[in-house]
Amino acid sequence: MATFKDIGVAAAINILTAFGFLVAFAFLRLQPYNDRVYFPKWYIKGLRHSPRHSGAAVRKFVNLDYRSYLSFLNWMPAALKMPEPELIDHAGLDSAVYLRIYLLGLKIFVPIALFAFAILVPVNWTNKTLELLSASKLTYSDIDKLSISNIPNESERFWAHLVMAYTFTFWTCYVLYKEYKLIAGMRLHFLASEQRRPDQFSVLVRNVPPDPDESVSELVEHFFLVNHPDHYLTHQVVFNANKLAKLVKKKKKMRNWLDFYQLKYSRNHQTIRLTTKVGFLGLWGERVDAIDFYTTEVEKLSKEIEAERERTTSNPKSIMPAAFVSFRTRWGAAVCAQTQQTRNPTIWLTEWAPEPRDVYWENLAIPFVSLTVRKLIMFVAFFFLTFFFMIPITFVQSLASIEGMKKRLPFLKRIIERHFIKTLVQGFLPGLALKLFLIFLPSILMLMSKIEGYTSRSSLERRSASRYYFFQLINVFFGSIMVGAAFEQLDTFLHKSANQIPQIIGVAIPMKATFFITFIMVDGWAGVAGEILRLKPLIFFHIKNSLFVKTEKDREEAMDPGSLGFNTGEPQIQLYFLLGLVYAVVTPMLLPFIIVFFGLAFVVYRHQIINVYNQEYESGAAFWPDVHGRIITALIISQVLLMGLLTTKKAAQSTPFLLALPVLTIWFHRFCKNRFESAFVKYPLQEAMMKDTLERAREPNLNLKGYLQNAYIHPVFKGEDDDESYEVTKEWEQEGLVPTKRQSRRNTPLPSKYSGSSSPSLPDVVQE
Amino acid sequence: MATFKDIGVAAAINILTAFGFLVAFAFLRLQPYNDRVYFPKWYIKGLRHSPRHSGAAVRKFVNLDYRSYLSFLNWMPAALKMPEPELIDHAGLDSAVYLRIYLLGLKIFVPIALFAFAILVPVNWTNKTLELLSASKLTYSDIDKLSISNIPNESERFWAHLVMAYTFTFWTCYVLYKEYKLIAGMRLHFLASEQRRPDQFSVLVRNVPPDPDESVSELVEHFFLVNHPDHYLTHQVVFNANKLAKLVKKKKKMRNWLDFYQLKYSRNHQTIRLTTKVGFLGLWGERVDAIDFYTTEVEKLSKEIEAERERTTSNPKSIMPAAFVSFRTRWGAAVCAQTQQTRNPTIWLTEWAPEPRDVYWENLAIPFVSLTVRKLIMFVAFFFLTFFFMIPITFVQSLASIEGMKKRLPFLKRIIERHFIKTLVQGFLPGLALKLFLIFLPSILMLMSKIEGYTSRSSLERRSASRYYFFQLINVFFGSIMVGAAFEQLDTFLHKSANQIPQIIGVAIPMKATFFITFIMVDGWAGVAGEILRLKPLIFFHIKNSLFVKTEKDREEAMDPGSLGFNTGEPQIQLYFLLGLVYAVVTPMLLPFIIVFFGLAFVVYRHQIINVYNQEYESGAAFWPDVHGRIITALIISQVLLMGLLTTKKAAQSTPFLLALPVLTIWFHRFCKNRFESAFVKYPLQEAMMKDTLERAREPNLNLKGYLQNAYIHPVFKGEDDDESYEVTKEWEQEGLVPTKRQSRRNTPLPSKYSGSSSPSLPDVVQE
Repeated sequence: MATFKDIGVAAAINILTAFGFLVAFAFLRLQPYNDRVYFPKWYIKGLRHSPRHSGAAVRKFVNLDYRSYLSFLNWMPAALKMPEPELIDHAGLDSAVYLRIYLLGLKIFVPIALFAFAILVPVNWTNKTLELLSASKLTYSDIDKLSISNIPNESERFWAHLVMAYTFTFWTCYVLYKEYKLIAGMRLHFLASEQRRPDQFSVLVRNVPPDPDESVSELVEHFFLVNHPDHYLTHQVVFNANKLAKLVKKKKKMRNWLDFYQLKYSRNHQTIRLTTKVGFLGLWGERVDAIDFYTTEVEKLSKEIEAERERTTSNPKSIMPAAFVSFRTRWGAAVCAQTQQTRNPTIWLTEWAPEPRDVYWENLAIPFVSLTVRKLIMFVAFFFLTFFFMIPITFVQSLASIEGMKKRLPFLKRIIERHFIKTLVQGFLPGLALKLFLIFLPSILMLMSKIEGYTSRSSLERRSASRYYFFQLINVFFGSIMVGAAFEQLDTFLHKSANQIPQIIGVAIPMKATFFITFIMVDGWAGVAGEILRLKPLIFFHIKNSLFVKTEKDREEAMDPGSLGFNTGEPQIQLYFLLGLVYAVVTPMLLPFIIVFFGLAFVVYRHQIINVYNQEYESGAAFWPDVHGRIITALIISQVLLMGLLTTKKAAQSTPFLLALPVLTIWFHRFCKNRFESAFVKYPLQEAMMKDTLERAREPNLNLKGYLQNAYIHPVFKGEDDDESYEVTKEWEQEGLVPTKRQSRRNTPLPSKYSGSSSPSLPDVVQE
Repeated sequence: MATFKDIGVAAAINILTAFGFLVAFAFLRLQPYNDRVYFPKWYIKGLRHSPRHSGAAVRKFVNLDYRSYLSFLNWMPAALKMPEPELIDHAGLDSAVYLRIYLLGLKIFVPIALFAFAILVPVNWTNKTLELLSASKLTYSDIDKLSISNIPNESERFWAHLVMAYTFTFWTCYVLYKEYKLIAGMRLHFLASEQRRPDQFSVLVRNVPPDPDESVSELVEHFFLVNHPDHYLTHQVVFNANKLAKLVKKKKKMRNWLDFYQLKYSRNHQTIRLTTKVGFLGLWGERVDAIDFYTTEVEKLSKEIEAERERTTSNPKSIMPAAFVSFRTRWGAAVCAQTQQTRNPTIWLTEWAPEPRDVYWENLAIPFVSLTVRKLIMFVAFFFLTFFFMIPITFVQSLASIEGMKKRLPFLKRIIERHFIKTLVQGFLPGLALKLFLIFLPSILMLMSKIEGYTSRSSLERRSASRYYFFQLINVFFGSIMVGAAFEQLDTFLHKSANQIPQIIGVAIPMKATFFITFIMVDGWAGVAGEILRLKPLIFFHIKNSLFVKTEKDREEAMDPGSLGFNTGEPQIQLYFLLGLVYAVVTPMLLPFIIVFFGLAFVVYRHQIINVYNQEYESGAAFWPDVHGRIITALIISQVLLMGLLTTKKAAQSTPFLLALPVLTIWFHRFCKNRFESAFVKYPLQEAMMKDTLERAREPNLNLKGYLQNAYIHPVFKGEDDDESYEVTKEWEQEGLVPTKRQSRRNTPLPSKYSGSSSPSLPDVVQE
């Protein structure tokens, strides 16, 4: 068990590391040649241009102004200066609300820490249980003297902890309630004050049933003309352009290589023409002139793309049974998105169209039955991933051991037995498997979410986040406390009784306090400080900059500003909420470390959001119900574990009073859900009507159809080659207005007045 | 443990009892003076009139036709003869689908029984485990020889049970799927082919926010004119008429007494005028002439009712913040019911209006916060009711014991010590408390649902049913198996591990088979046969008939046809599903008894539904998702218990294969939920549009407003005194068209075109 001194040493090391990162950052960010790494957001917004070209050449690369180095922490107040409304305007609501999670941590834990230090620490400290126990040679640390462990069994003092548990729960719930209310309001305000956006008028329709007589486009038009006669405006079918996207990607890669060789050639003063091999990665095959080879490759691909594009738009089989349907009013879209269209709830599924940037195109055409089967498979897969991932890793580790390698790869025997290699294999390889797995875990989880068929990037990230949280809860939190692989925990859970489990975990909790303090310093403090340094993007930017960058546009692409990464970032924060809430009553010493984490992370991420990250989409803080729900989960876990701990302390009088806490907490959660969640999943008709009315008054002659016509086109159709894609968009415009082919539909009870007036009798592009 | 013989004796007794009931029924129903007890449904429908008045006087009361007694079971084929579509027409979809639950039982268990007897019984029978054990003086019954108990530990034969468990699960799921599909179709067809009904056009709006400027009625009108401008038609505010309803009820009672005395007076040849006392129940107080007293009472109440009615309709405080809003089209109503109206999801709550008969008026004005608090309190109350109801009952029982009474009521000592009283107290009183509790339980549960604030009778019944099911599951099923009060079970659940609990229960299951067989015969067979006799309504009818009935209308009221009683009936059936599924693999001998129950109950209830019950409302089989969900629950319980049982039998090889069953079952449930549940909670727009279009074509000049004007008036306003209520309805008609009073609303962006054209400038009735 660690003493104060041990903790102090660990803290010193980590503070120094964090400090080192911050100093390095302060130094690097002032160098003009790193400007694009540390301020990409401003470049993307067009508010900043490459460093001043005047002055000495060296000044372009190194900052020689010594004064700027003196105040090396002055980015911190700068990061805090921007007011929140401006931040929302600058980086979007998602980012602003994401920062509020850190702020929420401070709001919850600062008062809790004050209370705990004022009341619980004296209560714990003025006992002699551990001193008495230490007479019987039990070692204990100073930290433990401040924790609940120092209270003798059956003590009356546990009432203090009980009252504090209630106080902390009520305080947390109060802060959560205020925050939920505020963020629901922010979201509604954000949505209400938004500019006109295509997704306000559009609905994503999936599982359009196949019809032998009509194409998907005709079917969609007729269906909505009949069932939403006063509101339907236009629609866009979804093409299966996955193959085309692949070709476009390949072409981009080839062009990069072409740029690379051309740049090299020009730098060599146009004397040596480089050669390459045609095989895999340029490693084998015939040797050819590089520039010629890539020029022809790019040309070939351009033609292929052209042909594929033609095929995609003209082949009815490449039209997916899904469409983006746009309405004349927001009211019409709100109605369509929130209602069921037909008897069969598995066809004509309507939902709010995600923002065009947010659409995950690959998943738009998964049929209903397939979706439920995929969900089942992913559920089982995730279960095994969480609880049994250690089994293959242990197996790989056994392979990677000296003995295992000798056995299976006898020809390597000689090499392995050399001293250096042996050390390497023994010390490094076994850990490597686990490390690699943990690095790839977020990608694996994201892949699982993609297989499940979510249609927007934001929902994919939210789904991955909730799985990552569960994984961390089981394998990091419970795994560290119970010291065992997850499947061993599972075994314990099955074989112990419902009241024993909290006891087993509860007893272990005070003992793990020092471990978690170290964890917070390494993962939290140093990790966050490392984030601001952006080491990986820094290196990659300079490599790309020297190899591929020809034009200003290339340089912009090389910046890689990154984004918040909700799917990994949020579960990490949640782990700190969980630790804080669990240890608040048990070992209050942990709280200051958590508060430092939240404070530091708030400043760092605020700086990053202002200067670096470029969000790929805007979901309007749709993730808040998840955040709220997970903090509630942490609260309930902390209550149940405290109950278990107090039971083993034989505080029989006070423990039953804790039973009401989880019930009240769950009720509070349900209350908040009823009260606020709808703001995140529904769109009230009153709001829609208000915006519609205002718009009609302000712009009575707005050509909404023209505005919405091309909003939801697969990005490859409007890729970098704008000249090429233009043709397609023109075809698109025609394609929305297909005259009906089916006789029986012509005399539907409600003749389609819009198609009648605006449909020139063009040939059916899609059906050809 | 019971042998075949014991079971045979019990069966004989119960069969005889059931047979006795059926013979009594066959006899009684043929007597003309019972006609109204056994065929009230036909009287209510107006298809049957009082027994023929021709012939001898005695024939009016006794059936003298001996031939009709010979074929005393011929009501059975008659009950089965009516085809289902006619049944739906005759008794409504609710009743027809309710019968299908029994049919579902037959469909599930007949093939399962055949399979079990063909495969499992031989597998179990050809072992000698119990015979060998009986050498060591363990007693066993013949039934156990057919059960899984007869298989030795670690036997390979458990594979047969495993395969059967899978077969039974798949068969059950298959039947459930088919049935869900069929019933969803029936419901949609029923809704689609229905006549025009007010609830198709109406939406119940609750939690209308208070407004200082406008009355509720004005507020509702303006809100919907603004937010549903093309669809809003009219609305009706809800009066808090609870006090009025109470007065009406009191008046009815007084009039009953008046009738009673008048009848007595006229029967006594108008010689003796009876007297009564004015105090409680006529037991004390001044003695007065009865007819005079009640005549004045009735007159007084009539005046009071008149005054109260006046007050209710004119006092703005008696208008509740709720309204029934009607739309011009079904499409408009479907849209409004399924969308959120404002930012704040706790005001302007819209939901489908229940059928007028189905509205539970008392609950229409509960505010949102109060609702969530009520739900929490009821949750806690139900928890204690389920698990700790035995504690007060044990306490009452201890009071009711001889010793307890002596101690607490010493003055009764003498009386108690008499032999007769002593026996009575000892033998009868202790059981009485429990019996009384069980009799009142459905009412208690219904009261709890009412407190929770459901707004329709159908949802109240569904909620009560699910609570009653849970109560029975814990206290009847698990209570019988584990032989202990529920709080003792709760203790076991907390103190045993998650894998021990199924083992403990699983082991006890085969031993309880004979108990449950007896239970099925007593509760199921005899109980159902008793239901057809209608002993209570029979007695009450004759009492009322001889005391109060003056006119034909009174006689109609005295019939008390009753209704299905979903809140108690369905949980009882579910218990049989649970027993059947749990014992299908373990002790197949139980299955025939369950099949007989389902068969008998099907015939009996079909007869009752055709001839007796008069449903109070029609929910369109909205309860089916609950029925389906509970059978799935039973399936999962059976699987988990089988796992526990097989673990103790050390069938280590086969048990793990059972793990997939619950996962698959839960997945199946989710699949069905996604696929079919929406048919029971949503109303597809396509359907609404189709019906609207058809109607517009057929009846272009329909006066929908007139049709909907008075649809949702509190029943006391259209009570028996039709002449009195007429005035109110006239006021109502005016009241819907209140000219706006608030200046700011006058120039809303969308002027209210309906109120403009049709609003005569009448004084505001409500605001006066």
